[in-house]
Amino acid sequence: MNRPKRRNALSRAHMLDLITALKEVGGSDARGIIMAGAGPVFSAGHDFADVADASLDEVRGLLDTCTELMNLIQAVPQPVVARVHSLATAAGAQMVASCDLAVAAQSAGFAAPGGKGGWFCHTPMVAIARNIGRKRAAEMAYTGDIISAQQALDWGLVNRVVPDDELDSAVHDLLTRATRGSSGSKSLGKTTLYAQQSLGQDEAYELAVRVMAESSQTPAAREGMAAFLGKRHPSWPD
Amino acid sequence: MNRPKRRNALSRAHMLDLITALKEVGGSDARGIIMAGAGPVFSAGHDFADVADASLDEVRGLLDTCTELMNLIQAVPQPVVARVHSLATAAGAQMVASCDLAVAAQSAGFAAPGGKGGWFCHTPMVAIARNIGRKRAAEMAYTGDIISAQQALDWGLVNRVVPDDELDSAVHDLLTRATRGSSGSKSLGKTTLYAQQSLGQDEAYELAVRVMAESSQTPAAREGMAAFLGKRHPSWPD
Amino acid sequence: MNRPKRRNALSRAHMLDLITALKEVGGSDARGIIMAGAGPVFSAGHDFADVADASLDEVRGLLDTCTELMNLIQAVPQPVVARVHSLATAAGAQMVASCDLAVAAQSAGFAAPGGKGGWFCHTPMVAIARNIGRKRAAEMAYTGDIISAQQALDWGLVNRVVPDDELDSAVHDLLTRATRGSSGSKSLGKTTLYAQQSLGQDEAYELAVRVMAESSQTPAAREGMAAFLGKRHPSWPD
Repeated sequence: MNRPKRRNALSRAHMLDLITALKEVGGSDARGIIMAGAGPVFSAGHDFADVADASLDEVRGLLDTCTELMNLIQAVPQPVVARVHSLATAAGAQMVASCDLAVAAQSAGFAAPGGKGGWFCHTPMVAIARNIGRKRAAEMAYTGDIISAQQALDWGLVNRVVPDDELDSAVHDLLTRATRGSSGSKSLGKTTLYAQQSLGQDEAYELAVRVMAESSQTPAAREGMAAFLGKRHPSWPD
Repeated sequence: MNRPKRRNALSRAHMLDLITALKEVGGSDARGIIMAGAGPVFSAGHDFADVADASLDEVRGLLDTCTELMNLIQAVPQPVVARVHSLATAAGAQMVASCDLAVAAQSAGFAAPGGKGGWFCHTPMVAIARNIGRKRAAEMAYTGDIISAQQALDWGLVNRVVPDDELDSAVHDLLTRATRGSSGSKSLGKTTLYAQQSLGQDEAYELAVRVMAESSQTPAAREGMAAFLGKRHPSWPD
Repeated sequence: MNRPKRRNALSRAHMLDLITALKEVGGSDARGIIMAGAGPVFSAGHDFADVADASLDEVRGLLDTCTELMNLIQAVPQPVVARVHSLATAAGAQMVASCDLAVAAQSAGFAAPGGKGGWFCHTPMVAIARNIGRKRAAEMAYTGDIISAQQALDWGLVNRVVPDDELDSAVHDLLTRATRGSSGSKSLGKTTLYAQQSLGQDEAYELAVRVMAESSQTPAAREGMAAFLGKRHPSWPD
């Protein structure tokens, strides 16, 4: 996100740009994706200037596009790591919650501020409430207060908190760890992990057993096992 | 709860009183609700004296009323904060878990003691298991042991733990933060947050997008955005 | 698990042995079960030697047996405590996640290593993702890295971490706490707790109210309440 003067506000045009970029990278041989923002904040969410006088249809269009973006982050085959260097508020916090992984600078903060105003953060809370416990989700949603990076770590909204000047190296370290191995296997893993988490345990096992059995026959799985048993380095086919 | 000699036991009569009171406050212009207990404990749950010789129908009636009370806490439009000054056990712990938010004194404790006796805490665990992780829920349910306020905080059963003599100020501080902004917007937020948390992600987004789009057209949302853009204090219509 | 030279790998034969043992103990008057492993690791999961050249049907058979074992741990009437003295990886970590409770030695570690290779840990993640938050599950699944016992405790994958030489006493202490009271009541509690956790809140209360009302009429519940009210020690009928 490179609209620093607009605090990386998620205007419809900017979200369409991000969707295009994600689809492009998602279809490429890139092994991982970093979601980052230039300027003073990570992202301030939607811009009130886009909404203040908008009709119901216009707002619905904006939110449909936003939901498409958040779902796309979870649908691209690569692991997506949020690099949160500063404030992530409303749909900006939703984006962090929607990324597969997240690393925050010590000075970063997270909020769903609609709750202390006149327009509750209904859609951001869909993603946030799927990362953290109920009491904590309620606190963010009702108070609208900013929680610190450390709080976000303790609650499970981010995976790492590091000193501000170590943010890039920590993001790259986590992304490197998260992108080892076969890309095809990882992509199938990401799809299946999201799918099974939304199912009951019996249905989740049914799906996971089928996928895990089928994927045992792939060149990547065969190569991984042969390399392990042969005590050599694997050479991934994808 | 003001039956200190009965340890605020949730007899049917007392629960009906609480239901009446919650409906009354819920329908008033009160902005927030504190759930508190007078005397030595927060609440000891159901009174064995009410159950020991009761018929199946009588116990079912008691539990139906209890479930109505717990659901009502989540259905009233205002944020409800539990003020836990001491022990909250069985249906008392269920009440803390059912409140939107909770503040505990350092000396407070929480337990689902049925698991170490002859009558397992089946219904309390419905609420408790929706606040904390699986292994922790199993530990509370099977051991029946009292967990400390600090443990409850780490596990996400409460939002704050404070020295005993700062309990009231901490409760009021959290309630004040949780009741800022438009009451109408907050009420819609509470309803939608509980509703979407019980849905799969796709259905949750469908609901949240519809509610968030519709609520963008309300006087409260318009006022909040106009005030923000005009750099003035908002004046909420509700 | 007593195949130390094979790192307690979950071969089909070994899983069938464990299933037989669990059914036998589950049907006995044992009050609790400890799942432990002999040798250098708790369990390394499936053995690549069993899978590397196996057909789709053979792998599916292996995974169906594994799922049966994991579900059986949650289906036996007794509380099951994992005693994790060292590494628990892949289906070994799944087993810890599938146990009702878990105690880990300080030097223990947990991993879903498939994500950094060619065969993603799809089925282990079904159990692991039902114990810990989303970002943490994604981190384990994608990186394949070993997390420490302390991390597992913070995330809710285990209930206790203790110095290595206190592992047995800690396991026995937790099991003793978790097996107090009526066995029949506990068994019904375990079944109902798993069942209600996979339901929406309304359906969960419907189930829990019915079970809790019916179980109030059992000899165990009556004895527990009578003993409490009579200030005497209970004598459980089962």
